[in-house]
Amino acid sequence: MHSYKHLLNFSKAIFLKMGCPEDDAELASTVLLSADLRGVDSHGVARLSGYVRLWEAERINSKPNVRIVHESPSTAVVDGDRGLGLVVAPKAMKIAIEKAKIAGTGWVSVRNSNHYGIAGYHALMALQHDMIGMSMTNASPLVAPTFSLERLLGTNPIAVAIPAKTQPPFVADFATTTAANGKLEILQRKGKEAPLGWIQDKDGTQTPNPHELKDGGALLPLGGDRDHGSHKGYCLGSIVDIFSAVLSGANFGPWVPPFVSFLPLPKDPVGEGIGHFFGAMRIDAFRPSEEFKLNMDIWIERFRSAPAIAGEKVLIPGDPEREMEKERLTAGIPLLPPVEKDLEELGKRFGVKF
Amino acid sequence: MHSYKHLLNFSKAIFLKMGCPEDDAELASTVLLSADLRGVDSHGVARLSGYVRLWEAERINSKPNVRIVHESPSTAVVDGDRGLGLVVAPKAMKIAIEKAKIAGTGWVSVRNSNHYGIAGYHALMALQHDMIGMSMTNASPLVAPTFSLERLLGTNPIAVAIPAKTQPPFVADFATTTAANGKLEILQRKGKEAPLGWIQDKDGTQTPNPHELKDGGALLPLGGDRDHGSHKGYCLGSIVDIFSAVLSGANFGPWVPPFVSFLPLPKDPVGEGIGHFFGAMRIDAFRPSEEFKLNMDIWIERFRSAPAIAGEKVLIPGDPEREMEKERLTAGIPLLPPVEKDLEELGKRFGVKF
Repeated sequence: MHSYKHLLNFSKAIFLKMGCPEDDAELASTVLLSADLRGVDSHGVARLSGYVRLWEAERINSKPNVRIVHESPSTAVVDGDRGLGLVVAPKAMKIAIEKAKIAGTGWVSVRNSNHYGIAGYHALMALQHDMIGMSMTNASPLVAPTFSLERLLGTNPIAVAIPAKTQPPFVADFATTTAANGKLEILQRKGKEAPLGWIQDKDGTQTPNPHELKDGGALLPLGGDRDHGSHKGYCLGSIVDIFSAVLSGANFGPWVPPFVSFLPLPKDPVGEGIGHFFGAMRIDAFRPSEEFKLNMDIWIERFRSAPAIAGEKVLIPGDPEREMEKERLTAGIPLLPPVEKDLEELGKRFGVKF
Repeated sequence: MHSYKHLLNFSKAIFLKMGCPEDDAELASTVLLSADLRGVDSHGVARLSGYVRLWEAERINSKPNVRIVHESPSTAVVDGDRGLGLVVAPKAMKIAIEKAKIAGTGWVSVRNSNHYGIAGYHALMALQHDMIGMSMTNASPLVAPTFSLERLLGTNPIAVAIPAKTQPPFVADFATTTAANGKLEILQRKGKEAPLGWIQDKDGTQTPNPHELKDGGALLPLGGDRDHGSHKGYCLGSIVDIFSAVLSGANFGPWVPPFVSFLPLPKDPVGEGIGHFFGAMRIDAFRPSEEFKLNMDIWIERFRSAPAIAGEKVLIPGDPEREMEKERLTAGIPLLPPVEKDLEELGKRFGVKF
């Protein structure tokens, strides 16, 4: 177990070594660790050395000039200047929030960025302003559209955070695939099989073997196959891709650059970096905030108290992550031995004690 | 086969008999028939007598005063005055488009409305203004959230229409369940079984029997079960419900009134009527429209030309409906014998020749 504070300070020290300004290093480590706190281990400190390698490969600019390149009263396109997505994304979300203060809503599409951690962090930023927050991003291609043999989309997550009054907020944060790639990685490591509907092999046949993904296979869109609505998951992933990248001028579809630095960048890029999309809607641009939140309390209480299948209960989106965060803030964050080893080596290399 | 023009004129004549003003009758019949043209037979003229019965039960006001009750530069809440959703919805979408012209985007949440036909019609309205259109609605509860034995959500569809340059537009329009209710109705009529993952019985067990839906069962959220991501479909349906109804002050969750007039209205309503949510985003509030549309052409061409599973091809959302519309505009619209009989009786009752 590692304390939140320890991992946060370690990450910050590494980002400082990369040359990030103090505020950016603080922000990037906070965003990164929010994944570990919320139980999304695949997107947290385990990825720290991946970001470092991207910087070493000169694919990340540690001193970006994040700026608005186009705007209207309720919209902006932000150029991330090849910065860490962990820094570019919360800055862009802040612009969406500022727009919403004046125009009622704010919508920001981002180009020239990198991977931004968990989608939920940025959506959650809206809550303290009495706003609904939205966040989505495209990602490197791992997903085959319905009937496709080729990977054309990333796991393209969507997060939506909605405030309530006495109840905790509603926080949805999910990949638009049947299962997120992090879950596949766990199965690969443990040598276990996946349920059918998660993966197809290189011929487009569903397979339980998570290793097929490395052999020409693909993740499947939410729904799994046509009979179970995979065309809807394909629609969702496409909408995320278009809002994040075609609206901003980032790379889209199969042209999205990989997270791992050892893979080459796609040839003939169609845009700059990867893309994100953020939204902020002021509650009182629709109705008095108190009324809305009281109704959200009714919504949440009604759903939470519904009769459930034996041994289960009806959860509200955000419940599991909030409980995990509470637990890990006190009990600490568990890391797998290979991740610990990776961080130790990273620390040695940069003269930072892990 | 019936010609589009004939069914349109018949529907318009019936709406006039209900007391709708000329313009509203024209609009309502156009929206209704757009479902038949696009192949969504469950939401088209087959529902005409259902709307009439709701009017006879005094649940629909044929002369509504559709008005803005709250607004900001980029948002509005519209009160539908118990009007036909077929009329309220396009008027609300028009307000979203007008907001977007000035503020860059427009977002309208609607209360006190009724069923609005297909989601896609309203989203498509944005295209002629060089905007992205969005449309969603809640609906009467048929869907059990993950692990719930109780139906708490409607099939709550989402539609998104995005313009391209030489390619036809990207048009997603889908229920947030594994399968739309219309597909279940077809199976029920034909006495056929459904794939597992579409329905659960009253004990929460997946069943292939579409009749279980009438016996305490429920439709399942997109994903089907927890292992296949049903919590994501549950998130999507919930977001549609909250944006459509909690933002506007309409009924939400299990309180959404039924489409069929013989079912009683829920007791202790939490709002007024059913709710919708519309969005319009001006393309050039993000980047020059020409650039965006050229990139959409690249996106569409790249996806459409991907290698596909034997005997299939990779479709672009909107392809099947557009082809259907082209065909039915010339060849006519097929109706099932019970629908023809229903419309004949309706015509007789109101003195309109079918």
